[in-house]
Amino acid sequence: MEYAPIGVVRSRFRKPADHEKMLSYKSKIVVAEEYAEGLQGIEKCDHLMVTFHFHLSDEYRLVAPRRDGNVRGVFASRSPHRPNPLGITTVELLDVQGRHLTVRGLDAVDGTPVLDIKPHARCFDTPEG
Amino acid sequence: MEYAPIGVVRSRFRKPADHEKMLSYKSKIVVAEEYAEGLQGIEKCDHLMVTFHFHLSDEYRLVAPRRDGNVRGVFASRSPHRPNPLGITTVELLDVQGRHLTVRGLDAVDGTPVLDIKPHARCFDTPEG
Repeated sequence: MEYAPIGVVRSRFRKPADHEKMLSYKSKIVVAEEYAEGLQGIEKCDHLMVTFHFHLSDEYRLVAPRRDGNVRGVFASRSPHRPNPLGITTVELLDVQGRHLTVRGLDAVDGTPVLDIKPHARCFDTPEG
Repeated sequence: MEYAPIGVVRSRFRKPADHEKMLSYKSKIVVAEEYAEGLQGIEKCDHLMVTFHFHLSDEYRLVAPRRDGNVRGVFASRSPHRPNPLGITTVELLDVQGRHLTVRGLDAVDGTPVLDIKPHARCFDTPEG
């Protein structure tokens, strides 16, 4: 199956850095103009689940060694070296200006292609939330 | 970007049904033989985040009407009619028999292509969890 980016990450991090540090900074998601209409109502969401493509991850490893010396399968890990290099991170939505979402907690480097955005928590006070 | 299934959903539901009902039943994820090694250690996970392809969803809608009469953007909704038809559901892992994972809480119909599986909660008693 073929997917295309709906937007891109804008971050101060040009390459992977300390994870805790990346999570603590603000970054932006800029949604492409053709998909901007899909953001309607998103400002009511506190948290978003962002799906992105690990574009710097060029090959996968089914098992990888862990710090304790054991190995772990890729499906029991969060490694970016996956058969389908999909990253999923829940972020805090801080601000929305048109197609520009300011978020905190996105562990993706500058230029990362964004594939999807979903509400994580309830956005609206209705049963289907 | 091009993705390929790493497995498939086996469910009693052949087409979308009542959501609560789908979530309450057990279903299976059968991982393809070539990726089976990637399951190593997964039996220690209580919950998995399953990413799948909404294969029955053939077009997307950037905005859709809601029950209350307002419209909502696709990125502020969980609609399957998305520019990139990615479903993400957290399931309970009940059993692992080789390449067959028995789970509860998977709202995907029989035959749904699975793209990725990640641990949702901690699998191991180590700092990187």
